Amino acid sequence: MTAEKRGPLVRVAIVGLGAIGREVLRAVCARPGLLLTGVADPALAGRDAGEVAELGTGPLGLIVAASVLEALAGADVALVLTGSGVADVLPIVEAAAAQGVDVISTCEDLAYADLATADLARRLDACARAGEISVIGTGVNPGFVMDRLPLTLAAACVRVDRVQVFRVVDAAKRRAPLRAKVGAGMTVEEFRAGVAAGRLGHRGLRESCALIGVGLGRVFDEIRSTIEPVVAERPGIAPGRVAGLHQLAVGVRGGQEIVRLDLEMSVGALDPHDRIVIEGDPPLDVLVRGGTQGDRGTVGAVLSAIPAVIAAPPGLKTILDLTLGG
Amino acid sequence: MTAEKRGPLVRVAIVGLGAIGREVLRAVCARPGLLLTGVADPALAGRDAGEVAELGTGPLGLIVAASVLEALAGADVALVLTGSGVADVLPIVEAAAAQGVDVISTCEDLAYADLATADLARRLDACARAGEISVIGTGVNPGFVMDRLPLTLAAACVRVDRVQVFRVVDAAKRRAPLRAKVGAGMTVEEFRAGVAAGRLGHRGLRESCALIGVGLGRVFDEIRSTIEPVVAERPGIAPGRVAGLHQLAVGVRGGQEIVRLDLEMSVGALDPHDRIVIEGDPPLDVLVRGGTQGDRGTVGAVLSAIPAVIAAPPGLKTILDLTLGG
Repeated sequence: MTAEKRGPLVRVAIVGLGAIGREVLRAVCARPGLLLTGVADPALAGRDAGEVAELGTGPLGLIVAASVLEALAGADVALVLTGSGVADVLPIVEAAAAQGVDVISTCEDLAYADLATADLARRLDACARAGEISVIGTGVNPGFVMDRLPLTLAAACVRVDRVQVFRVVDAAKRRAPLRAKVGAGMTVEEFRAGVAAGRLGHRGLRESCALIGVGLGRVFDEIRSTIEPVVAERPGIAPGRVAGLHQLAVGVRGGQEIVRLDLEMSVGALDPHDRIVIEGDPPLDVLVRGGTQGDRGTVGAVLSAIPAVIAAPPGLKTILDLTLGG
Repeated sequence: MTAEKRGPLVRVAIVGLGAIGREVLRAVCARPGLLLTGVADPALAGRDAGEVAELGTGPLGLIVAASVLEALAGADVALVLTGSGVADVLPIVEAAAAQGVDVISTCEDLAYADLATADLARRLDACARAGEISVIGTGVNPGFVMDRLPLTLAAACVRVDRVQVFRVVDAAKRRAPLRAKVGAGMTVEEFRAGVAAGRLGHRGLRESCALIGVGLGRVFDEIRSTIEPVVAERPGIAPGRVAGLHQLAVGVRGGQEIVRLDLEMSVGALDPHDRIVIEGDPPLDVLVRGGTQGDRGTVGAVLSAIPAVIAAPPGLKTILDLTLGG
């Protein structure tokens, strides 16, 4: 918790200058009230951070550090845009805790670390409390479309019987890593082998499902999940090859389906959109026309979380702890 | 703040047993985790609260009190469903503060008391802090459709240029007080006189507009608002008579329109819906098909706020302070 440290500007460090890290850097530099104070990425150490991120305004005068500790010095909050697993970000959180720097990360598993890695979650929470920092995993998905937004809608309901979220993303409009993640161009056999090996699939869907359960006050007996190939005629995809994936996470309690998250990400997907259907009182049927743009939504979700994370009491947080203010 | 007091059940008092109060009572009795401990309404004092609210399960064994103090005794949170002005609820909040009971109210002006009654807001905040309670005004509108939901969507944006919310409500499907509030059946002259006298119009639209401004970090130079009659051929409305109202609140800064809230409530309104359009990066265009049902949404918003309000630090709060958890 760094509320005491807050001056007129929030001092921001960035860890990880991949594609999303570069977008985040440009957004931090463009947003009033934020001051970029450090950047770490071992692969880019020694280069000017503004030039790496193609700021387009010449050198930023801020050199990318190899050391996370060095980049975090003097920051209020670190935006950690590196790995997908909790184990990947734990050393970074430990460095942040040592310096009293809050952490916001796009690490998908961190969105609800209790689910897959309860031991690491406890360790991370203890570390955050000891360092009096708060730590959260967020982004557009997990972090927004399939958890925070449906739970916000559910807050207008007297009773919720079932929550369904459908998200259809045209992978052709996204970056190459996303197209690879959804198996575009593979044979069905390659796709199934990739899923079995954990190389393919959207990470965080089970976490979103669990978060909705927690928010609704329902403990699931199980979360069923499947990943199937989308085989369809699509531009740029050879006939019979995989265009993308269709992934489900279903939260079940007492034999009843309480939450269904249904995600299609495929090249040339028809009618991209997000839709949230709440069966309850009142019922709600909400459509995000065209869908929430993934990368830009992730950058927005990370930056928007800054005031709430700075104001939050110490510990490991989730989107259930976020306010709209600071 | 009554977090220390929380047992397995949250003890709830209700103040005001009008139409919404009765719906809230039924919902409190139906929701696991809540225990109704007191009800106050001077006009109904001495009657069984369950019978007044038509619970349908026989007497509740809880007698409606004339005294707010009496009804609040031992409660964790009071749901206050009485007046629309901050001055109306101030004595109730003072009674709640004296007993350490948090307050959630549908009082429209309380949604952002700083706007119309900054002096009362300061007094109420001081009172809440002295009594270590938190106090919030919420409901479906203000409190959800035209403030909390658009601000939640804006949290996925890197940059917000303008927020527009359109809400169309068919007043024929609502209670008689709402039809009266929108001027249904009046002549245009009666309507205009009613607006001028403050008897007609939806309360809270300016508050929602101001809340979005605060949430976006923009201070408006002014909030422009208008209330016009809807004169149209509608079932049950004599030709030339008013079917309802069309109300605007527009937040302006530096000559730029930043927020536009556009509300039509009329008998037989075509295509009832809520729509939120965010111009920004990424842009968002969100449709709530059929719209969020007003009374049920208000009951849902009030009940859903309970965990967050109980967990919140003391003071006068707004929807910007609400979390999705507790």
